[in-house]
Amino acid sequence: MLTLHQMAMSGNCYKIRLAAHQLGIPLNLVDYPLHGGKTREPEFLAKNPNGRVPLLEFEDGRFLPESGAILFYLAQGSALWPSGRWAQAEVLQWMFFEQYSHEPYIAVARFWLGYAPKEALEAKRHLVPEWHQKGYAALGVMDGHLAARDWFAGERYSIADIALYAYTHKAHEGGFDLDDYRHVRAWMERVKATPGYIAL
Amino acid sequence: MLTLHQMAMSGNCYKIRLAAHQLGIPLNLVDYPLHGGKTREPEFLAKNPNGRVPLLEFEDGRFLPESGAILFYLAQGSALWPSGRWAQAEVLQWMFFEQYSHEPYIAVARFWLGYAPKEALEAKRHLVPEWHQKGYAALGVMDGHLAARDWFAGERYSIADIALYAYTHKAHEGGFDLDDYRHVRAWMERVKATPGYIAL
Repeated sequence: MLTLHQMAMSGNCYKIRLAAHQLGIPLNLVDYPLHGGKTREPEFLAKNPNGRVPLLEFEDGRFLPESGAILFYLAQGSALWPSGRWAQAEVLQWMFFEQYSHEPYIAVARFWLGYAPKEALEAKRHLVPEWHQKGYAALGVMDGHLAARDWFAGERYSIADIALYAYTHKAHEGGFDLDDYRHVRAWMERVKATPGYIAL
Repeated sequence: MLTLHQMAMSGNCYKIRLAAHQLGIPLNLVDYPLHGGKTREPEFLAKNPNGRVPLLEFEDGRFLPESGAILFYLAQGSALWPSGRWAQAEVLQWMFFEQYSHEPYIAVARFWLGYAPKEALEAKRHLVPEWHQKGYAALGVMDGHLAARDWFAGERYSIADIALYAYTHKAHEGGFDLDDYRHVRAWMERVKATPGYIAL
């Protein structure tokens, strides 16, 4: 069985649990606490030198980090990974968009405003306006794209939707108001209605 | 012919030029100035609502943004994209690593220290220590991985190497000293020696 090293509240880890559940792939979960730096200690760094979860462990001892790469691996041969070079490139386009233009603002705001110790947040408080400005910009790009489409890529539900859904549907925990992003809100309802959906 | 909307000095754009040249794919280049915000104006936003280059334009009017997605698209069916689910996932692992843990520090330091107007840099100067700390951490992960390998994934040169090479070989412009990263330096020499290599 595959083992997922994870933090329960992490959206990046939830992406893997959601995709695996929808694909019928059982996962053995190893949980790490959100605080305390366990993933920066030598025992974990021997598994992933970049010190991050999610990390997928195979029975033969191989490890695969990076949520996007794990989603790609799990989805091969399934409906969550479309066929055709163009549709596949579109899926990856939105997964790279999420990691570069979305997660660093929307997930980071959620962590600091929703989960960090109060005194640690105070040292980051001056960054909140930039997180909100850039996070809203990403939400605007998503809303425009979804105005004419049900899903992000390949005209069907894929790992691109899973990647973007994870932190978007928890954006309110980082102080984002999605009232003005009605296409995003309708898309989140469609994701929630997909077979095998599980909540974060 | 494919058209690449690009900025000449951008490492993300250089990745596409390098891969296309090595694959024998001709590109029509449309250059944007580094400063002045042309990619945030309506004419460009109609092509890519996220306001970024590189952006690949197809003859039929489709557009593909995100350097990682463009590299994936161009490399399909070539030696730059390995066969096999595991090797492909490894390639994407390093491409996501580059965009999340490497580029935001190493490319950003290069831009502000090497290319930004002096008065703009002063407003960012307090961020330089964090860029260097996190950028060196990424270089450490790379150096450790390359200690036992010639290439990042699939045991051969791939778009993962191209993605990581682009900003690593210009890291000195952002104040990074690579003297202690000898495996990275040896790997950069191997990249430079690949057939069809072109300089940034």
